[in-house]
This record gives sequence, C-alpha cells and structure tokens, in this order.
Amino acid sequence: MHAVIYVCNLTALAAVAATSAFAQSTVTIWGVVDAAVSRGTSDANSVTRLVGSGISSSQLGFRGTEDLGGGMSASFWLEAGVSNDSGAGGATSTNNQSTGTGATSATGGAVTTTGTQGLTFNRRSTVSLTGGFGEIRLGRDYTPQFWNWTAYDPFGTNGVGTNRAMANSVALGGTTASTTGTAVRASNSVTYLYNHAANATYAGGGAGLHAAVQMYYGENLSDSATPKDGDGSGIRVGYNAGALSTALGYGQTKFAAGNMTMTNLGASYNFGPATLMAQVTKDELGTVKGDGMLLGVAAPMGAGLIRASYSTYETGTAESKQTAIGYVHSLSKRTRAYVTYANVSNSGGAKAALGGATGVADKSSSGFDIGMTHSF
Amino acid sequence: MHAVIYVCNLTALAAVAATSAFAQSTVTIWGVVDAAVSRGTSDANSVTRLVGSGISSSQLGFRGTEDLGGGMSASFWLEAGVSNDSGAGGATSTNNQSTGTGATSATGGAVTTTGTQGLTFNRRSTVSLTGGFGEIRLGRDYTPQFWNWTAYDPFGTNGVGTNRAMANSVALGGTTASTTGTAVRASNSVTYLYNHAANATYAGGGAGLHAAVQMYYGENLSDSATPKDGDGSGIRVGYNAGALSTALGYGQTKFAAGNMTMTNLGASYNFGPATLMAQVTKDELGTVKGDGMLLGVAAPMGAGLIRASYSTYETGTAESKQTAIGYVHSLSKRTRAYVTYANVSNSGGAKAALGGATGVADKSSSGFDIGMTHSF
Amino acid sequence: MHAVIYVCNLTALAAVAATSAFAQSTVTIWGVVDAAVSRGTSDANSVTRLVGSGISSSQLGFRGTEDLGGGMSASFWLEAGVSNDSGAGGATSTNNQSTGTGATSATGGAVTTTGTQGLTFNRRSTVSLTGGFGEIRLGRDYTPQFWNWTAYDPFGTNGVGTNRAMANSVALGGTTASTTGTAVRASNSVTYLYNHAANATYAGGGAGLHAAVQMYYGENLSDSATPKDGDGSGIRVGYNAGALSTALGYGQTKFAAGNMTMTNLGASYNFGPATLMAQVTKDELGTVKGDGMLLGVAAPMGAGLIRASYSTYETGTAESKQTAIGYVHSLSKRTRAYVTYANVSNSGGAKAALGGATGVADKSSSGFDIGMTHSF
Repeated sequence: MHAVIYVCNLTALAAVAATSAFAQSTVTIWGVVDAAVSRGTSDANSVTRLVGSGISSSQLGFRGTEDLGGGMSASFWLEAGVSNDSGAGGATSTNNQSTGTGATSATGGAVTTTGTQGLTFNRRSTVSLTGGFGEIRLGRDYTPQFWNWTAYDPFGTNGVGTNRAMANSVALGGTTASTTGTAVRASNSVTYLYNHAANATYAGGGAGLHAAVQMYYGENLSDSATPKDGDGSGIRVGYNAGALSTALGYGQTKFAAGNMTMTNLGASYNFGPATLMAQVTKDELGTVKGDGMLLGVAAPMGAGLIRASYSTYETGTAESKQTAIGYVHSLSKRTRAYVTYANVSNSGGAKAALGGATGVADKSSSGFDIGMTHSF
Repeated sequence: MHAVIYVCNLTALAAVAATSAFAQSTVTIWGVVDAAVSRGTSDANSVTRLVGSGISSSQLGFRGTEDLGGGMSASFWLEAGVSNDSGAGGATSTNNQSTGTGATSATGGAVTTTGTQGLTFNRRSTVSLTGGFGEIRLGRDYTPQFWNWTAYDPFGTNGVGTNRAMANSVALGGTTASTTGTAVRASNSVTYLYNHAANATYAGGGAGLHAAVQMYYGENLSDSATPKDGDGSGIRVGYNAGALSTALGYGQTKFAAGNMTMTNLGASYNFGPATLMAQVTKDELGTVKGDGMLLGVAAPMGAGLIRASYSTYETGTAESKQTAIGYVHSLSKRTRAYVTYANVSNSGGAKAALGGATGVADKSSSGFDIGMTHSF
Repeated sequence: MHAVIYVCNLTALAAVAATSAFAQSTVTIWGVVDAAVSRGTSDANSVTRLVGSGISSSQLGFRGTEDLGGGMSASFWLEAGVSNDSGAGGATSTNNQSTGTGATSATGGAVTTTGTQGLTFNRRSTVSLTGGFGEIRLGRDYTPQFWNWTAYDPFGTNGVGTNRAMANSVALGGTTASTTGTAVRASNSVTYLYNHAANATYAGGGAGLHAAVQMYYGENLSDSATPKDGDGSGIRVGYNAGALSTALGYGQTKFAAGNMTMTNLGASYNFGPATLMAQVTKDELGTVKGDGMLLGVAAPMGAGLIRASYSTYETGTAESKQTAIGYVHSLSKRTRAYVTYANVSNSGGAKAALGGATGVADKSSSGFDIGMTHSF
C-alpha cells in the first residue's frame, strides 16, 4: 500500500530512460539516523543520555539538479536536522542572531520550559545556478569560516570528540566566536563557489584551487539602532592535489554585542595507512580573543577506522586541552557502529566538560559514546 | 547511497506498468525554491534582504490520487510553506484566528523574540473524495473568497508587485480584511468543488461553469462567550471559455473582533500576444470598508514574460495606488530568473510601503526584487 | 514537472532490478490523511469540529531497511504526526515529561495563546540493528506498556470510540497514568525486540512467543534534585497462535510528581465472522490507582466492518462507562469512509466527555464522527 521509492544510481536511471519517456529530472531524498548511548562525567556530576549525531549529523533532505543545457544547471537543496532521540527538529535563525531561535512552551501565562522545535531546513536551504563561471547559491548554508573546523577534524565536529575550537563555549563561559549565530551557518546568504561540483558542499572543492565567497544579511532597517547587526561575509580558499588538501577560511560578522572574526587554516595528507590532519584557529568576539589548534589522525583497518585527535583552545589565561580516540566499524557502506572516548583538562579558569556533564573550573571531564549510524 | 526518485510523467508510468506488476497508486513529491535579493525604500528608511517566494511561493509537498473505480477517486494533498532564506517553515492556525500562530522563543522566563516555526502543511492539508457529483474536500485549504486576488493578478500575489487588495494591511494600519485569519486560507474546512479536476487548486476550474463552496469552523464550545468566532463560509463561481476566464468570489467570517466579508470579481482574456487581467474588490471588517481594483497584463516574448499592473485600494479617504512592472526569463520549464520593480503612492493618510521598508503617511515607496525560482 | 514516485511492491522492484543496475536499498514514504466532522455533546455544551485521525492516526513517514548480509539488517523509521485539520505537526518530548512539549505564540511580552507546532517525528524516530538475536532499536517509539491498549481495542485508540483506559484523563481530572509523558511513547529509549519482523511495530509480533523490552532516560544530571525524573522501563510479552493473540504489558516511570506504573493484559480471538477483544488495565500514578476493562468486537460484512466496544475505568469511587459503535466502509484497500458513535456515563464524581465537549460530574456525554481516511 506504500510508496516504495526506487533507490538507484544515475547510470541505471539513464539506462531505463533510454527506452522510456522519462523526464530528465530527479529528486533525491536522503538522510542519516545516528544514535548513541552517551555518558558524560565531570567533578560536578554525570549523566547518561541517548543522543543523536554521534559521528554524523542526523538529517533528512530533498535535493535535485536540472540540466539547463549549454553547460548550465539549476539546483535546489533542502536539508533538515533531526533530533532523532526525541523526533524533534532543529532551530534556525531568521536574522543571523543566536537568540531568536527555537520554540518554547508555556504553562499558564509563564514560559516555564523549552518547547519542541518542528523540522526546519536549518542545515541548508538553497537554490543555485551553475555554469562555466561557477555557482551562485542563495539561501541558508554553511559559512566559509566554519568549514575547516569540520573538514580537518577526524571526528567531523560530531560527538564527544568534537575539536575544542568548535566546542569551546562551555570552556570559556559561552562568549567565544563559536557561540554566535554565524559561526557555522548563515541565513539570507549569497554565495559564489568556484571549482565545486554543482550543488556540492564546501568540502566538495575540485582538484587544484577552489574557493567559496559569501555575504549575508541581518536584514535590519537602515534607521534601526544597529542597522548592520547580523551582516557579514566570509571566504574560503583551498587547494587539493592528490593526497593533500588544505584550505584557509576567514569570516566576519557585525553584531550589536561585539563584532566577530574567525580565521582558520587546515590541512590533511593521506599517507595511505592513515590520513593526518591539522588546523589552527584565531577568533575574536568583541574584545575576547581565542586561539585553537588540532592534530588528528584517521587510520582505516579493514572494515574499521581508528580516529584520534588532540586539540586545544585558549582565551587569555583560560585553556582547555582535549584528547579523543574512537573506533568506527563499517557493517556496510551505509551502516556503521562506533565508540568514542574523550577527556578534556582545564587550566586558568577554563571549565570545558564533555557528554552533557557540568564543567568545573580547572578540573577535567570525560565523555563516552557508543552507537550506530545509518544513512539512506 | 541515496534514494534517487524517478521523475516521470504518468504516461511513462503507465507504459512501464503495462509490462510489470506495479500497483496503481503514486505519490508525487514536488516543490518550489524561489529566492531573491530584495530592496525596499521609503521616506523613513531602506532595507536589503534575501527573501523567498519572489514570484512563486516556496513550498514542499506530497500528494496523490487513487482511482477507486466507477468514476470515483480519493486524493490527499500535504503542502508546506518553506521560508527558504532561513529554512524555517510557515505558521498555520488551528482556529482561524490571525493570532495564535507561529512559534516563540524565550530568554529566561520572558518571551523576548520570535522563535523559528517548524514546517507545517499550512498551505494545504486535505483529503478528498471525487466522483461524478464533484469533489468533497476536508482540511485546510484556500478560501473561495481569496482565489481571485491571485488568479487575476499578473504577479500572482508574490513579491513587491503583489496587488494592493492583498497587500493593503500595511497601507491601512493592519485593520482590513486581508489581515484576518481567513482572508487566504481556512483550517477545519469542508469544501465542495464542481467542475474541477480531482485534487486541483481553485484555479483549476474546467471549461464552462465551475464552482467552489466552503464552510469552516472556529471550533468553539457552544457556551463560550463567542461561540461562532472563526466560523465562516465562502463561494466562488467561475466561467472559462477559450481565451476568457472570469470568476466571482464571496466569503464571510464571524470574528469576535468584528465580522468580515470579502467580495471580488476578476477576469482575464488571452489576446494571444498578451493576457489582460482585471479585478475589483469590496471588503468589510467590522465598520471598516475597503475598495480595490487592478488592471494587469502579462505578455510572453520568446523565453521571456513581461508583467505589469496598476492597482489601488482605499478605505475612507486613505488611498494607495501602485504601479508594478517585471520581467521573467525562462531558463527551462522549471527554472526562471526574474526582476520586479514596484512603486506605491499614498494619500489621505495611507502609508503603504514595499520591500520591507517602513511606510510614511502620504509618501511613496518603492521595492525591487531580483532572483530565481526553481520548481521540481 | 513533478517528481512522481513509483508505487510498487517489492516483487516488482526485484523483477526490474534483475535486468538493471539498481542498488539494493529502498526508502518508503507513506502516510495517512484521516478527516472527520466530529460533534460532541455534554450537559455543559456542544461543539462541532473538523478533526484528524478519526479511525487511524494521520501521519507522514520515511523508513527503510538495508540487508547487511549474514542475516543482519539495519533499519530506520521517521514518522511524523499530522494535524490535518490545520496542517500543524505534533509535539514530542525531549525528557519524557508531559510538560515541555509543543510550541507557543506570544502577543507582546506575554504568552497568550498556543502557537502552531511544526512537524516532528513524534510518532517514531528510530534506528535499528536486527539479526538472529532479535532487534536493538534506539530513539523515540511506543512504550511496551501502551501497546495493548490499542492492539486489543476495536477502535484502535482513535476517535470518539477510544477505550476509557486511554481516554481516562478527562474523566478523572487529568491525574491518571494516561496523562503522563510515557503512557504512549518514550524518547531516549533503547528497545530489544524478540520475534518481531525487522523494523516492525510492537503489533508485528510473529507466531508463537514474542517480546519487547525497553528502557528510557529522562537525561537528568546526577546532582539534580530529581536525577531519575523521566527514567523508566517496560516490557510486553505476547503469544500469537492462529486465531488467538494475547499479550501482557508492564511499565514503570519515575516522575518527580509521583511514580507511574501501568499493567495491562489483552487478548483477541478471530472466530471468522467476528474478532472478539478483551483487555484489563491496572494503573498507578503516585497515590492514585486506576482500573479499566474493555470488551470489543470487530465483524467484517462484505466491504464493511462493524465495530463495537464497552469499556470502563474507575479510580476510587469515580467511574466512567462507555459504549461505542461504528461502521467502516472500504472504498478500496487504501480508502475508507466511517461513522462512529459513543456514549459515556459517569458516577461517583467522574466527568468524562466525548468529542471535545466539557464533562460534567455524574452526567453522560456523547460523541459522533463521520469521515474518511486515505493511506498512501
């Protein structure tokens, strides 16, 4: 009684199309459901949770590309984050602020608890035109200044092993660049991509030089007190040559509460038995300055993959240092089981914590994920 | 690894089905992603934004029709609005009020900013039974009193060129018919459609006489202070004959704050080189009366389409007059690029403004959209 | 222009795949749109509404199973509730509390009305690994203690005929087990299923003995005032043999407001001309104890199905007794029309009411649904 959708590759589609009257266009539905039992422990407390996105971000999406002829194509991409431990969706921002997102619930007249957020295409919501000149993309997408954090992290900014530059807010009181509305994604953006496959993510830069340049709007009236609040721009320039991949990212956003800049440089080299990764980060948010680095390795072993990283982040005297190690076992190309363990130590007043536990200044914390991920 | 869905026409589906054991039913997934850089200017201020739905409403939907035999069919339609500049969804109403929609977010115990709304099937959410008698449709759908506003507007009530009857709330202080909960759609509705294709929109009336009759419930308890608040009904009767299309719409909703009636008459004639459109509107909301009109033209030129309209709306002495012109260039049947420019002038205290700028009484305002739309 | 998805059975898919290069995996999109005009009457008032889910729960879902070889498979299931009278989605819970769900809207700084909830995968959001050992399932799903309520109710806990154990909260002041956050589903759960088809619902137990065991987390910090608030577990053990089906369910959840236990036993026997059903329920919530029972019958007659039930629920001296009768007419395997009528009488202070009317202590109430349901 149900709609069973063909899952096929495009070669097969073309083969069938050759003998039938199929139109040329396709819609791709895809997703990830990743769930883990996660345990976090600190000097203050501990917590056991079922969490989503332990090694890959749970999502449901719809996308497609239409060939317009003459080397041109049009594309769309609608990708929703899924909190699959509860079935809730994920918040987005309409004005590039970190406030003003999410949903609330109320008991009586007072807002007492956080309500559940419905599905939004918070991960990406774009329409594009691609040609020999590159790609123009309109909507909500990753910022150029974010992408190196995840591309050169063996844990891909998911789970307890996420590098400290991305996770630093807990360590440093929630006032660093990663806590702002445009550290990862921006709404109301126009992006130009050079040497990327049509409709690809930023990671999809082709061989040789590739680049992404983006500007985004806070959409304030010109006579408001802060007309540029949430306006910003970013650039990422990278180079891929065989085993080597490297990229430089920079972005700035004007915020009424203090301007943000993010600068980062990452690189990876695939030695065959293992891929080594490194990145350095320099952030500013108002008068706060932050510095981070990461060294990481991803080593395939048969159907398995060993991942490890060492990352730090400091602002002023406060510093957090984290070691993470994990193992991923592929049950198929689409299904993997995994374990990750990480430990973070703090000094100078830093209070980073892992796995949902509460940080304590100058004390260490550990986190552990065990789970599975399935993509479709 | 991903689910690639066949895109085919029904003829092709039938051709394959003839030699295979496919079931008879289909689910259609469709959508529109339309994005524009939009600029609005008034005597008070200006603003630049990335907006969705510049010439067509961004949406994602699921629909299908099942042949029940004997000339009968059952259908469903679930259509979500998508704010593709941020990825947010669109609000709906459970009781046909304009309040009580949307989501909020809170900082501490106080609601300070508007939260992000998840996807709802706010554009249409219906199940239908169709036969020789016509179609009975249950759920949320357009109201009959709305449809002429968009069907006989060359800009289709999207973007800065939207006719004044639809856009009048800004001009007139937000107290006119278009600002009520049932001006465009109604929840909890039962609709009867005569001479429409099964599961079609109101615009899909067949040749000759067609009609839509709807009633909807505010769902109040009989002993509440306002038991009929949000109850209403509407009718649209139209006639299509070759190049001519015309329809009369009427609707009324009881509101505790003041009853609403909407009456409108629209017509279009396709002269070949151009289609001319005209509509007149007469609204009442409590003691406020409004009158509007539109003259418009849509002229295809090769792969292009030129659109222009002149529309007015007045209530008491306040009047807004708007001129809009636009060009749409088809890159394919599914992908179009466009520009639209509109200017509105105000008198008698009216303060309409375009493109997100703030209106000033008796001053003019202009808006400009440049973007692309892609349907799938 | 639209994506028409093949609807086919898996046999057909395999037949095509044999001569093409299709990959092995599929995504199934399915749904239900069920709408009824519903009328409720009590001694206090009456109300007419358009409601969803009159005999089956309106929903939209995405699911799939991947064969991993060696008798193993991986599966996902994302199922959203749809309020198709308005197009809104359904709320979920992130911490297994009945508060903290849903969305709100605000006028000014005060929360005045309930906002619209976007789509969430509140009905089920899971990823699974299945093998000879059974199935491990992670995410949000039905609780084992719920399932007998619906499996052995001829009205399947939908519409005005829903059995009293499920609907008892109205009768008894909203303080019984069915009003807690884990009476029907739980978030953050880990479930083990024995002798169920991969990715099946709890109802899908195979022939002979089958079982489901679940634990779920409230996800509180260990040093919080109520570290176990929302933690719980459940078990359901059943036996299917030809015409006979029976199952025992038990669950307990720790709540700061008072612990909950639910125990129930249900059975059905298909005599051919009719299937008889019976269930008994014993609940505790803090110091409140509840007892319920149901006797029901479902009798097919050609394309029709007659359903009837008698159910009671009492706590202390308060008791509600309900009689329900309905007729379902199949227009096809996927489309059905239906009518249901129910009447509830109260004594000892109970004030159950049907169809949205307001209950009055020791007075009776009736409800009536007439509608259609369509699945795809």
